[in-house]
Formats: sequence, C-alpha cells, structure tokens
Amino acid sequence: MAILYNRILLTGAAGNLGKELRPFLRERCNKLRLSSRRPIDLEGDNEELAVLDLADFEKVLEATKDVDAIVHMGGTSKEDTWNNVLQGNIVGMYNLFEASRQNKVKRIIWGSSVHAIGYHKRTDVLEPDCVTKPDSLYGVSKVFGEGLAQYYFDKFKVESVSIRIGSSFPKVADWRMLSTWLSFDDLRHLVERSLIVPKVDHTIIFGCSNNDQSFWDNSKVGYMGYKPRDNAEDQRPYLEENVKKPPHDDTAITYQGGSFVVAGHFEDK
Amino acid sequence: MAILYNRILLTGAAGNLGKELRPFLRERCNKLRLSSRRPIDLEGDNEELAVLDLADFEKVLEATKDVDAIVHMGGTSKEDTWNNVLQGNIVGMYNLFEASRQNKVKRIIWGSSVHAIGYHKRTDVLEPDCVTKPDSLYGVSKVFGEGLAQYYFDKFKVESVSIRIGSSFPKVADWRMLSTWLSFDDLRHLVERSLIVPKVDHTIIFGCSNNDQSFWDNSKVGYMGYKPRDNAEDQRPYLEENVKKPPHDDTAITYQGGSFVVAGHFEDK
Amino acid sequence: MAILYNRILLTGAAGNLGKELRPFLRERCNKLRLSSRRPIDLEGDNEELAVLDLADFEKVLEATKDVDAIVHMGGTSKEDTWNNVLQGNIVGMYNLFEASRQNKVKRIIWGSSVHAIGYHKRTDVLEPDCVTKPDSLYGVSKVFGEGLAQYYFDKFKVESVSIRIGSSFPKVADWRMLSTWLSFDDLRHLVERSLIVPKVDHTIIFGCSNNDQSFWDNSKVGYMGYKPRDNAEDQRPYLEENVKKPPHDDTAITYQGGSFVVAGHFEDK
Amino acid sequence: MAILYNRILLTGAAGNLGKELRPFLRERCNKLRLSSRRPIDLEGDNEELAVLDLADFEKVLEATKDVDAIVHMGGTSKEDTWNNVLQGNIVGMYNLFEASRQNKVKRIIWGSSVHAIGYHKRTDVLEPDCVTKPDSLYGVSKVFGEGLAQYYFDKFKVESVSIRIGSSFPKVADWRMLSTWLSFDDLRHLVERSLIVPKVDHTIIFGCSNNDQSFWDNSKVGYMGYKPRDNAEDQRPYLEENVKKPPHDDTAITYQGGSFVVAGHFEDK
Amino acid sequence: MAILYNRILLTGAAGNLGKELRPFLRERCNKLRLSSRRPIDLEGDNEELAVLDLADFEKVLEATKDVDAIVHMGGTSKEDTWNNVLQGNIVGMYNLFEASRQNKVKRIIWGSSVHAIGYHKRTDVLEPDCVTKPDSLYGVSKVFGEGLAQYYFDKFKVESVSIRIGSSFPKVADWRMLSTWLSFDDLRHLVERSLIVPKVDHTIIFGCSNNDQSFWDNSKVGYMGYKPRDNAEDQRPYLEENVKKPPHDDTAITYQGGSFVVAGHFEDK
Amino acid sequence: MAILYNRILLTGAAGNLGKELRPFLRERCNKLRLSSRRPIDLEGDNEELAVLDLADFEKVLEATKDVDAIVHMGGTSKEDTWNNVLQGNIVGMYNLFEASRQNKVKRIIWGSSVHAIGYHKRTDVLEPDCVTKPDSLYGVSKVFGEGLAQYYFDKFKVESVSIRIGSSFPKVADWRMLSTWLSFDDLRHLVERSLIVPKVDHTIIFGCSNNDQSFWDNSKVGYMGYKPRDNAEDQRPYLEENVKKPPHDDTAITYQGGSFVVAGHFEDK
Repeated sequence: MAILYNRILLTGAAGNLGKELRPFLRERCNKLRLSSRRPIDLEGDNEELAVLDLADFEKVLEATKDVDAIVHMGGTSKEDTWNNVLQGNIVGMYNLFEASRQNKVKRIIWGSSVHAIGYHKRTDVLEPDCVTKPDSLYGVSKVFGEGLAQYYFDKFKVESVSIRIGSSFPKVADWRMLSTWLSFDDLRHLVERSLIVPKVDHTIIFGCSNNDQSFWDNSKVGYMGYKPRDNAEDQRPYLEENVKKPPHDDTAITYQGGSFVVAGHFEDK
Repeated sequence: MAILYNRILLTGAAGNLGKELRPFLRERCNKLRLSSRRPIDLEGDNEELAVLDLADFEKVLEATKDVDAIVHMGGTSKEDTWNNVLQGNIVGMYNLFEASRQNKVKRIIWGSSVHAIGYHKRTDVLEPDCVTKPDSLYGVSKVFGEGLAQYYFDKFKVESVSIRIGSSFPKVADWRMLSTWLSFDDLRHLVERSLIVPKVDHTIIFGCSNNDQSFWDNSKVGYMGYKPRDNAEDQRPYLEENVKKPPHDDTAITYQGGSFVVAGHFEDK
Repeated sequence: MAILYNRILLTGAAGNLGKELRPFLRERCNKLRLSSRRPIDLEGDNEELAVLDLADFEKVLEATKDVDAIVHMGGTSKEDTWNNVLQGNIVGMYNLFEASRQNKVKRIIWGSSVHAIGYHKRTDVLEPDCVTKPDSLYGVSKVFGEGLAQYYFDKFKVESVSIRIGSSFPKVADWRMLSTWLSFDDLRHLVERSLIVPKVDHTIIFGCSNNDQSFWDNSKVGYMGYKPRDNAEDQRPYLEENVKKPPHDDTAITYQGGSFVVAGHFEDK
Repeated sequence: MAILYNRILLTGAAGNLGKELRPFLRERCNKLRLSSRRPIDLEGDNEELAVLDLADFEKVLEATKDVDAIVHMGGTSKEDTWNNVLQGNIVGMYNLFEASRQNKVKRIIWGSSVHAIGYHKRTDVLEPDCVTKPDSLYGVSKVFGEGLAQYYFDKFKVESVSIRIGSSFPKVADWRMLSTWLSFDDLRHLVERSLIVPKVDHTIIFGCSNNDQSFWDNSKVGYMGYKPRDNAEDQRPYLEENVKKPPHDDTAITYQGGSFVVAGHFEDK
Repeated sequence: MAILYNRILLTGAAGNLGKELRPFLRERCNKLRLSSRRPIDLEGDNEELAVLDLADFEKVLEATKDVDAIVHMGGTSKEDTWNNVLQGNIVGMYNLFEASRQNKVKRIIWGSSVHAIGYHKRTDVLEPDCVTKPDSLYGVSKVFGEGLAQYYFDKFKVESVSIRIGSSFPKVADWRMLSTWLSFDDLRHLVERSLIVPKVDHTIIFGCSNNDQSFWDNSKVGYMGYKPRDNAEDQRPYLEENVKKPPHDDTAITYQGGSFVVAGHFEDK
Repeated sequence: MAILYNRILLTGAAGNLGKELRPFLRERCNKLRLSSRRPIDLEGDNEELAVLDLADFEKVLEATKDVDAIVHMGGTSKEDTWNNVLQGNIVGMYNLFEASRQNKVKRIIWGSSVHAIGYHKRTDVLEPDCVTKPDSLYGVSKVFGEGLAQYYFDKFKVESVSIRIGSSFPKVADWRMLSTWLSFDDLRHLVERSLIVPKVDHTIIFGCSNNDQSFWDNSKVGYMGYKPRDNAEDQRPYLEENVKKPPHDDTAITYQGGSFVVAGHFEDK
C-alpha cells in the first residue's frame, strides 16, 4: 500500500464513517492523527490522538500542525438545532479551513451531503455543478461548507474535495437507498481517489455506489477516477422481504433528500 | 418474482411485442388483462381478456376498470394512412389516458418510437429531452402521445413512461439496427424498470440495447435504473455474411429514422 | 407596402385575430383569400372567399389551390371537448399541411399557443426549443401541430412558423397579461416578419410584446427580426384601478398557462 | 404610488443603501418599520422604529411581527473579521428568516453581493444560476444567505429575492464600476420590481445598472421585469480625468470581485 | 478624445477597412504606424509608414518595434488560391503574433470573418464559442488565426480580439447583408471597445451592426461593451427597389456564409 | 477479418504509430499503400510503397490515386520550429485533403492531438465540441487541421475523423499518462471503428484508453462505437516504483497539455 501523505488528520474518528475509514487511512500515511470530542483508544503504532471540539479554534490550530491532509468526517451529521448546526458545521468548518491555511495543510477531504441538494426532484439527474437546494439547516450548513472550500482554494490554494454523501451505511436499509447508498468499500475508494489524484482544486463529487437507480451523474468530475463497484440493487430482495414500500405519493419519494424534506423545522418538534 | 401491481392491462397483446411481454408480465401481477382487437386464447390462470378497438372510448373505459398499471403496445406500429394513424394512435391514446384518469390507473408504460425523432442525424447523439423531429405521420402521432402523457401527469398525476423504441426484433436484421436494436430481454427489463421505479412522473426514455454504436444517451434518466445487457455489435458477423451494406451516401444512413425518412407519403404509394 | 406573396390564404378570417390581420395582409399580397366556416362580406378588390370547415379535406385542398402562403388563425382557440379539439386542431391541421404539400404552398404561419408550454413555472424563462408541457387538450393539440409542422418541413420543405401566442387582446385585461400580452400591432409585425424572412425552415417563436415582465426569451430565433414595440407594463395603472390582484398563492400564478392550468377537464364541467 | 404591502421592515435603515431606500419605501406601504443598531429619527407619519442587533433572535422576532415584506440591507457590508461576519451575516440572516417564518412574513428582498461570485473572471459573463465563487469570508456569508433563502422558500414558502449588488454608490468611483455600478435609481427600481412581481419563489438577480461593459446577464430572470436605465459608461469622462487607470496585469482587473480578490485575509492585516 | 495607446500599428492601411479606421485611430494614439504592401501618403503629423509584406518576418519584426497595440486588417480578404491564403493569412498571422511577442505588444485587434463559421445555417443563432465551420480556405485560415490568437494569449499573455466581421460596406448591398452588415461607424465603435476594455484575454466577437435580422448573439461577451447603433433593416427599401431577391431555395440563403458556401474551389475556376 | 476498403493509404508508415497500425490495416484492405519520407521494406503481398514529402502536392496527388480511405499518421508529431510545423502539418494537411478531393477518397482518419486543447485545466472534463486551446504551434496546426477537415466535409463530402490522440505509447511512462494514455490496442480499435461506422461526417473524438482518471468524455460521439478496453490505472504500481511524482504545484499538472504548456517557445531554446 503506497504512503500518500506523511501525516493525515481524521476528524470525527469515533463516528460511524470515521470508524470505517480509520484502519484504511492508517495504511496510507506514516502518522494518522485522530480527532474526536471524547478520548478514544489508539489502535496502531502510527496513530495519535487530538481531543477537541471543532468549535474551539485554538485546539483546531494545534491539531492541524504538521498535517499534510485532512479527512474531515466530524461535525453534526443530521438535522439538529440551529445552534448545534452553527457550532459544529459552520464555525467548525471555518476553524478547520483557517487552521489548515495557517498550517499549510495541502488537501482536505470532507463529508458534504445529499442534503445540500435535497430539494431537487428524484427525476432530475444532477451533476455536481447543479444549483444547491438544501432541505434542512444541516443542508444549508453544507452549502456554506462548499462555498468556504471553494474560497480557500481560490484564494489560498488549500485543495479540497466536497463529497456529497448519499447514505453511507453497512446495508441498504430503506427504499430510497436504492438510489443514494454509498457502501463503506466505495466510500474508502472515493476517499483514496480524493487523496491520490494529482490536482483536485476544489471538487464537488457525489458519494454513492454504482447503484442502478442513481439520480447523480459524476461524469463532469471523471478526472477523479472514482469507479464505485457496489450496487444497491443487489439488496432489493432484502427490502422486498423486510421493508414496507412507501406509497407512490409520499412526498419523501418526490425529492432527493427523502425524509429530510418532509421533516418540519427541528425546533418545532 | 415480486408482484408489482395487482392488475396490469396489456394492450396489443397479440402483437409482436405484446407476445414477448405477456408471460413476463403474468409473473408480476395478480391478474393480467389482455386487450386485443381480435379474441386470443388465455394461457394462464391469472389472465383475462378484453376484446376492443382502442378508438372506442366506452370499451376502453370498461377495459381499464380496476386496473393499476397499463403496458400499452397497441395501436399502429408503422407508417400508415392518416386515418389509421389518427384512429389507432391519436384517438386511441386519448381514450387510454382519459379512461385511466377516470379509473384512477396509477401508471402507463407505452411504446413511443424512434420515429418521433427520426429526422435527427445519426451523428447527433440525443438525450430524451431533445427537440422532436418526426419522420412520418406515425412519428407525429408519437409526438402527440408524448405531449398527452406529459399533460395527464402534470394535471392529473397519471404517471407514465414513454419508451422511444428503436428496433425491437429477435435479431439484428439490418445495418441500421447496430445502433437501434432493442433485444426482447432488454425490452422486458426496461418495462420492468418502468413499473418498479418509485416515481417516474412522465419520463421519456430511449429503448435500445447496450449497442456499441448507439446514438442515444439515457444518462439524464439514470434514475430509471435501465441497464441493458445485449449488444447488437455481437451480431455484426451475421450482417457481414447475409445483409448487403447500404452505400455511404444512402439518405437512410444519414438520419436516425432510417427508411422512414426516405419513404414518400404513405398515401402517395 | 411591398407585395410579399401573390396569393395569401387567411384562415379564421372571422375570428378575433383574423379580423386584425385581414386589412394588413390585404396590402401585402395581390389576392387575399379568406376562409371561414360562415360566409363573410368581402371588403376589398383583392379579397376572395372560401367557406369551409377545416375538418373537410377536399374543401381545404380546394381552398389552398394557387396559394403561396397561409396565415392560419382558424381552429379551436381555447379548451374545448376532445371531439372539437380533435376535429378543429388535429384533423384541421393535418388537412391544411397535407393540402399545402399537394398544392405546393411555400410557407404557413399559424397560431400555436402558450398552452403548449403552460405547465412551465412563470419563474422559468423559456426558449423556443424548451420541452413542451401542455396545460389542456387544446395545448396538446398545439404540440401535435408543432410536430406536424416540423415534419412537413423536414420531409416536404413546406416552411412554417409556429407562433406561440400568449394573450392577444386589444388591452391588458388581467394581471397575468403583464407577462403574456401580445398587442395587435406586434402580432401584425410578427406575422410580417414570418412572411418576409428569407428562410424560416420550421421556426417556433414566442408571441408576446416587449413586456417588462416577460418569461420568454426569443434570442435563439433572433434571425426572425421580431422586435416588438408595445409593453404591457404601460397598462399597469389600468389594472391597479380596475382588476383585483390574485393572491400570491393562487395556482394560476405559479404556471405560465394561468387559469388553463387550474381548470378541470373540460368534460367534467 | 400604489401601496404594495401593508407593513414593510427595512433593516440597515441607517446604512448607505438603507437611507436611499427609505423615502421610496415609505410611499409603497402603510407603515415602514426601520431597524437599526442605533436609534434614528423618524421622518414621516408612517415610520416606526426597531432598535436591535440582528444577532439577537428575540429582538428580531419582535421586529418582524405583523410585517408583510422585508427589505434587508443590514449586516456587515464588506470583508471583516470572521466573528463579525458570523454574527452579522450568518446568525443575522438565520434570525431574520426564522423570525419571518414564525411571523408569516411573505417576502424578503435582501442584499447579496458580487462577492459571492467574485472569483469568476471578468471575461466570463455570468447568469444568476452560475456556480458560486466567493472572494472573501464576507462573500462566503452571502453564499450561506442564498442557500438559506432557497431553503426557506422550498420548505416554508417564504419568498425572497437575493440581489447580488455590484457597486451601489452615488457615482462611478473607479474603473471597475464601469461594469459593476448600480445607481441608486436602479437599486430602487430593482427593489420595487422585487416587491411587485406576483411570484418570485427564491430568485437570485444581479444588481447592476444598464452598463455597457457589464459581465452579468439577467435574461434567465427576465420575469422580474428589471429594466435598469442608468449606464456607468456615461461617467467615463469623469474617470479619465480623475482616476488613475489600473495596469492591465493588475490581478484586481482579472476577477469580478476586484480588490476583494487581491486582499489578504482580514485578520492578517 | 482620450489617447488609448502610445503607438498603434494599423496593417492593411490602404485596404477598404484600413482606410475607414485610419483617421479614427489617429485620434486615439500619439503615433499611428501604417503598414501596407505599397507606399501610401501620410496624412497627419502623428502618422508613420512601414512598407512590408506580412509574409516577411524580419520586416514584421521591425514594424512592430515600440508598438503598444495593433489593429490588423491586412492579409487576404476573400477566397483566393491556397498559396495566397497561406502566405497572407497563415504565415502573415504567425509573423504578426510572433513579432508582437518578441516586441511585447500588448494587444492585437484583428479581422477574423463570418467565413470561419459560414457553414452554420442561418436559422441557427450562434454565440462566439460555437463550433467553427469554415466555408472556404479563406475561412479555414481564420480558424487558424483564432487558434493562434488563443495560443499567444494562453502562453505569452499577448491579448487579442478576433472580430468575426460579417459584411463591412458603406451600404447594405444585397439581401444577406440584412443579417450580416457591419456599418463603418459600428466597426469603429467595436475597434474602440476592443482597445479600451481593461481585459480581453483572447475574445472572439461577432462584428455586425444592430440588425433586426441578425443570426449572431454577442451576449456571452457582453463585457466588451459593444453596442452597435446602425440597423441594416433601415435600408430594406433600397434593396426592394434595386436588388433582386434570391429564390427561397437558393443554397446561399441556407447558410450564414452566403455565396462562399456555394462557390466551388477557387482553383477550379 | 472483413475487408473494409479496397485500397487504404497509411501515411507516416515508418513512424511509431504507423508501425503499430500497419499489420492491422493490411488485414482490412486488399491493398495497403504505405507512404513515408524514406523508403521502407514491404512486408506483405498486399503492400505498396509511396515515398514522398507531404509538402509536395504533386507527389501527394499521385499517392492518393485509387485510394478509398486514408489513415494519416504523418507530419510533425511534437512541437517543432514554425517552418517544420508549417510544412509538415499545415501544407501537408492541405495537400492531403485537396488531393483526396481530386481523387475522390471517401474517408480520412488522422491524428489530431491533445495539444489542440492542451490549455484546458485537467479538472475540466472536455467533450469533443469544446473550445480549442492549443498549447504549442504544433497544437495550433491541429486546430487548423480540424478546421480543414470540417471544411472538406461540409463542401466536398470528404468524410474524416480527427482523433485527438492523448499519449500513445507501449506503456504508461509518466504520471500524466494515467489520464491520457492510449494503448496500441485501443488505437487500433479506434481506427477500425473510424473506418467501419457507416457515417462519420467530420467527427472529432478523444483518443485515450478506458483510463479511470480520464478528463475526456466521448459520450457525444457515442455513435462511433469506440469502447476502449485498457486502463492506465493498472500500471500505477510501475509508476510508484519507477517514476518520480511531480509536485502538486507543478504547472504541467494543472493543464491537460502537460509539459507542452510549460515549454517555452521552440525557437527560444
């Protein structure tokens, strides 16, 4: 396995996706720094720990010192109160990019989301440069993040890849995931491509597997060399047996964001 | 095999494509109603018959009662006199959609045609939302049908899929079919996808196999999950041995509609 | 005033738009043939009459003899029963184009309609090659007509201009017309341009005045030289004083087709 | 002068643009509520005051009570520290839209900025749905604001217009403004159109005068009826005499954002 | 009149367009150098002469010394033998750009031609970035020239404007010019804009007046500020009286290049 | 193996690509004529020789007599002095096409180059109808060649395929070739498709293998049936071991043309 960068920082290392990426990244760098809000056990010789809240700039600045590339899976990963979205995904993103600029980090790969474009209809096949249509405050924070990433590349040459993650779970768990599923293997492959490609500037790419029923088209970012191998369709039999099909006039079916679209405002709950 | 709809109506059940789809559809519904202008023998327990002329609204209204989805392969399938085109493909289409509205049929899959866009050059790769350029009165009736289908979805939420069928035959029979061939297996697969996908609104999709030499691009309707497996190119040796190659300056080669383009007006014959 | 064609046929000569075009056309040809379902009085030396129903092919064939160009304003001009739409706008259109082919008429200018694209939202600025989205059976008949016109040009070189007329009335009569109004002067100007331009092939052009608030963009057919001079906005004060503003959440405001969009099926009335 | 809304809230009423809009808005509503961080004198019978910091949600909620439309010119109007941008333009925008949702405000017109797209080259003519390329943290906050506005329309039907203001000053003050100038008269006209048009959903529109040398194309939002009348080119003689021309290889000339593009990070100063 | 550059070189100074531009350019620089294959009389104090053949690199190198901008109207101006096209428009263009690079000329404005895109149909409205379709060897040499100009900007930052001149004559002389005419006033205005705009990189722009019947759309290069004022349509009466209208099926009418399209190969004559 | 044409002329037969294509073409015609500047030994019964310099028209005219199709791999294959580019690639191309016209050659397949579009960024995925941006005089000569090919098809119906060859070498030799590599097998396949497809008009197609990391998209010329099978990515391990990775800020990485972009002017060396 080739070493791609000397030191990689993985944020959200204790989260679902962080856990999937951790052993994989460990093999592609000399030192993997893990950041998390709570302490976690180190597993390998080349791991090191940075306990921090992304909203704390000084801590982030320290954690990005001597880092060559960042895989950022931290922050809030679903709709939340405005304040949590603000601190985790807006202030946190700023802190990460600004600290990277100061510490001369070369490249940041981070998890944007389908929810940045969730109000597009599922019958509209999207390309990465489509107009954003967030379906939640969480989604708006991803629009902010993509804008910030573009800015830090244009002005400061901090390269980045915004992966609009669909649904990254061990298995296809509901009918919508036939379109949006991103297997963990394909996630790892996409992160590897994002690290390995010689130039990415700021690239937005859809993160889904090679699903028959996908409504995303990555051909305009073909230079990324992302070739997913899994296909949610293979798990249709599981759904047929175990998961109730939503009715055809369910609003969640009309839009790409699914249930986020029909959810009321978080604080209304 | 999953049951997709309780009752499906198959029109043109005695036609070439109807015959190919019939056993296949029988396995995907509880009751398959067959419509035809002449009586046909029933083959399975779950078949039922509706003898009718599509131009007769009352009969169509009756035949669509308690139907959940329609696979419409009836009507005139090639250039004909204006009157036959009018009755079979214009009046017939109206009757089918209007009866479906009244009977609350959920979805209609029907055979539109390459001849709705036959005057595009073969060197112009088309996407489904291209400008229509019919090559015959038959083709004009398909333009009408696609417009009608769009209307019934926009106003009445009757969903539909307009399949622009290229050349659906058992084998590649002439040189043009290297581009336009739709194998029966791929036709069945496409009809299944049209029935199974959660939302189709009104979708136009090109109906051809995975032919190397295709001039159609379905990527904008990728959400349909249509993944054809056959390839006309595999039958090139048969053509080389058995079918005379047309000269390069043959008009039929210039346009996607082939011989329909060069044919004079039907009634001139 | 230059003579543009020797003999022009004006259909629908007794209709609202026919009456506006009649004296104007009289000055641009040596002989103006008027067609109408009922007899009308001739007004000038160079007028001649053809009483006919467009659904009667033999009569149409006769009426198009020795004709050089046609301005076709006949047929049904709003939503109607299916049968009336079928006879007036589908059979009638076929008869007119087929007779023109047989009689070697050079060019046909005819009234298509906003209702061929009425289900587009008013916030979507359209170009003439947009996808059709009819809002009524009437609108579907216009989609048929545009397809037919394209076909007769591609195969038989009968040139034509499909004018998608917005709202052609003496004055701006409701709030939607701030976008869709086509003054009679601009209608005449557009018909003149359609007759005078050296090549039109089959051209689709939006028929509206130079309204500030227009949702149509004719720049792709700039070669037509259509430069409307009137502006519906000038009549806003009249509306403010005399016409109740519809509420912002009125469906008719959302779509370009206005009330046609919200109207139920004609036969449901 | 027609009354457009019963009560309009003008934020940033004491700022440069707020002052220009104030008397104009006073004539278009029954009650103009002015918000400002510091008290200001009321000038007319139909004015009322709301002193507040936009970052204070409770105050904003109170200030938007019984309001029908908002013209939001408050917040930070140029590059600033991250914290000022965050509080004024991110937290402030959220507070305004969330309060408007709760108080059922119908429409919000607000000042987005050229700096949301400032890293596009001046030789690239942009349309409003172009990819964003902010040139500053200020610009990133505008990207956030446009995303938020889209979200509040899509989910809650709060309509809004994001005006990407170029350079709104009394006179053309530097060479770049030959492209980006927005005269106060045209600003007022654009705000009026934004209030008056029946449907705007969420519309992004470029805010510049009818400048010969513009690099923006509003034709896709032609339904807004914005017809600017001033032309920066008329003030070229003033520039020739009074303002030094920048050299052709000045970076600020290459990009639409001008000096914002070349400015270092605010906090580096 | 503002001085735009210290020294401007005008090539083809004795040609039809050169003569129109000469007094105009004289007022916009301190020294106007005229180049021509034959000696011409100097008319003003600030004129100087360079007699040369563009195919002679050493002479071109000398003539571009101390030059700030070039207006290049030299070379072959219509279809010719391959050898004349090669020497005048291919070798000549190379010499001019290469000499400009060596002498650090800042900007070159030159006459490309409609004949670089003459095989587009007149019913296809073109934008400057359209695919080239030359109608003659002359047209092919213009495609070469535009490619060369792009190269010299991308690699060496020599800015240039390729003006695709339609038909620049004192008056509208035939029916096609209703679309392609470029009045001398508008030519001068376009050259001035090309000199005055702060950044042009390499810009391709269509050179025609504000003709009603134009088939060109310069909106993507709106930053050039080219606002033509003349309109060929005003001269229609002259054509009506003096020039025979070509028949509708004349090939020259079908394509933008007019008679160049129907002309046989030059050397076949 | 089917005979595709009676006599094929292969130019540049002694060059790297000519040698790869020679035995392959020998099996697809009755007579393979080889042209080269120096004599070469004939290898098969159906080979014949034409020694010539492409800049010599009379020799080219003779060599194209009785030829049905040409595979043109001759001329200068990399940046060179202007004079060599001029003679080999500009005069040579003209001679070949003009002689083909006179001798009624049906189709010409020739090697255009990535260097015709080398100044596009590697993060911009290109389609064949993209704007040209040559990176060298060599690249400019390819722009000329593509324009010439278009012209000879439009006016004289000489069909041609311009293959924009990336990097056709036995193995992936540097990091950029992960994107641009064209294996010899895929080159042969592409030439075969170019010969075999019924209509090509003038087609531009990118010549690269099925590389994961490609920045080219041939979907608009899907009718060519080009389905490359090799993938440069398979050779990444070789690169990792043997070839130094260029730094991320290397200019050659930014642009598709690679080192051609950073190379100074040839004659400056």
